[in-house]
Amino acid sequence: MPAARDQILATIQKYVDLVAGGTTAEVVALYAEGATVEDPVGTEVRTTRESITEFYSGLEALEQQGTLVSARVAGNEAAFQFELVTKAGDQTYTLAPIDVMTFDDDARITSMRAFWSGEDMVVS
Amino acid sequence: MPAARDQILATIQKYVDLVAGGTTAEVVALYAEGATVEDPVGTEVRTTRESITEFYSGLEALEQQGTLVSARVAGNEAAFQFELVTKAGDQTYTLAPIDVMTFDDDARITSMRAFWSGEDMVVS
Repeated sequence: MPAARDQILATIQKYVDLVAGGTTAEVVALYAEGATVEDPVGTEVRTTRESITEFYSGLEALEQQGTLVSARVAGNEAAFQFELVTKAGDQTYTLAPIDVMTFDDDARITSMRAFWSGEDMVVS
Repeated sequence: MPAARDQILATIQKYVDLVAGGTTAEVVALYAEGATVEDPVGTEVRTTRESITEFYSGLEALEQQGTLVSARVAGNEAAFQFELVTKAGDQTYTLAPIDVMTFDDDARITSMRAFWSGEDMVVS
């Protein structure tokens, strides 16, 4: 049975919270076996647990706040925008990508594609 | 040469404006030959000009306002959220889908997938 809308929304909220404030292992645990990550869209698709872990480990040490802006679920897929604010010294980097995900029957992520480009980064 | 980011953003803005206030022919003209439409995601993919025309002709007679909320371009793909407000008698229906599109080198739409479900419709 496909995951319920509420389960998918809960995974999305966890994802946003954990990307900002969780450990790499906690983020990667949201992904199903065999999942893929393309971030940003157009770059090489990560297809192994190792390469996905490598991707998120780059975020782990950063001081970040994450906020879910809007989420739309359609069947076992969803698109959502979230804002990630990163503080580094005196600078604040704000990026609000739109991510598209597919989910398995347990609402684990089976694929993620992140839509953003350098022009979307706001430095203040 | 792939379409420039600005060309893609211009097509997205035209799409939002024309879905709300344009003719069916004007909307369909934004699509490349052989384009596909899946709206909402999970329903049958429309693969012919006729079926895409049929889809948008259902919106043509409605009194609608469209506003682009947020757009993210990555290479020749983009995701964006827009709000479509439809007035019908005393009722106002507001829907803010997140659409994902791919584009050809002339920034014509080669595919569209719309993420939304009935729960996202706000009636006031």
